[in-house]
Amino acid sequence: MKLHVITDGKRTADELVSILCSIHSQADHIHVREKNRSAKEIYQIVERLIDGGIPPKKLIINDRVDVAHSLGVGGVQLAYHSLGVSEVRKSFPDLQIGKSVHSYQEAVEAEQAGASFLLYGHVYSTMSKEHLKPRGVEELKAIASAVSIPVIAIGGITPEKTSELKNIGVKGIAVMSGIMSAKDPLKAATLYQTNRRKAGSDERKL
Amino acid sequence: MKLHVITDGKRTADELVSILCSIHSQADHIHVREKNRSAKEIYQIVERLIDGGIPPKKLIINDRVDVAHSLGVGGVQLAYHSLGVSEVRKSFPDLQIGKSVHSYQEAVEAEQAGASFLLYGHVYSTMSKEHLKPRGVEELKAIASAVSIPVIAIGGITPEKTSELKNIGVKGIAVMSGIMSAKDPLKAATLYQTNRRKAGSDERKL
Repeated sequence: MKLHVITDGKRTADELVSILCSIHSQADHIHVREKNRSAKEIYQIVERLIDGGIPPKKLIINDRVDVAHSLGVGGVQLAYHSLGVSEVRKSFPDLQIGKSVHSYQEAVEAEQAGASFLLYGHVYSTMSKEHLKPRGVEELKAIASAVSIPVIAIGGITPEKTSELKNIGVKGIAVMSGIMSAKDPLKAATLYQTNRRKAGSDERKL
Repeated sequence: MKLHVITDGKRTADELVSILCSIHSQADHIHVREKNRSAKEIYQIVERLIDGGIPPKKLIINDRVDVAHSLGVGGVQLAYHSLGVSEVRKSFPDLQIGKSVHSYQEAVEAEQAGASFLLYGHVYSTMSKEHLKPRGVEELKAIASAVSIPVIAIGGITPEKTSELKNIGVKGIAVMSGIMSAKDPLKAATLYQTNRRKAGSDERKL
């Protein structure tokens, strides 16, 4: 199980750099998802993350493919309003492409278009989507069986949910407020990592 | 004198496509400057402009370097909040780079960083910047003498101003509301073109 940490767009640049540089060793990928920031601001933040010791390949930038390409980071996360997966695959062949999906149909199409991995959610109730009904695990399970690229679950994932997700074929979890809003983000990230390892070893025992 | 037409972010996609496809033969460059639209929306509009017969090299996309690169258009226009000129020059060598500048210092720096042309303004009073004092032509004249890349003037430029600008070394004019908000955009664009030609011939007579 991979751990993707996703920024919440609520921190100052200094807070972001401080939190992410302190937790990155616990995370497989860090998504810089700062929708209200300009290209220049995102560029400057990501430059500071790299200077702070985060390996560029660990970094994924939401929507701004140009910033990701300029900085040579690992990849981009594309939403509905972003450039399409096939366009990015063709014009930016060096980038990993994460695609955010909300249905089985979207998941299958994204894989066909060339996505490297999928983010599906929100799976459980979460403060950040409190007025939307969570999608649950049924469709997620079907997607995980249907596609061959990794499916990452997002939305209300507590460390305790990791085993359930692992057991239905999910390859990773993405956490936003569970880490970014934690009193001690490093402690929270470590707890997720411990549970991912436990989930991993549980499965090997089966 | 080149004519750059700049979209105003106030039209529907259909209106934009209709206006721009009708006037493009009168313009040297068309800037798609739609700050409130997503990458996906800008991509779709520019695709329609190309399908509608506008040569891709005539098209310049504001801020979204990724969209420009994906569609193989002529260039990008970078603002203060955009990726930097030198980063774009390095990572996207095929694109022409326009940089928006507001002072002599910014102009000189943008040329050194690798800009292909400069947009300086706003020069005259304009409805779209009615609370800001226009910059006038003095600094513009100094910039046009100092840099070797083309300097394009923007802001409140009526067809009658073309000669004055030509005479101080400006290489082009950029027009937004003068064409986009005109009752008859094609007629307005043609009037600008006629005056540009006249300004050109006046100068040749000197």
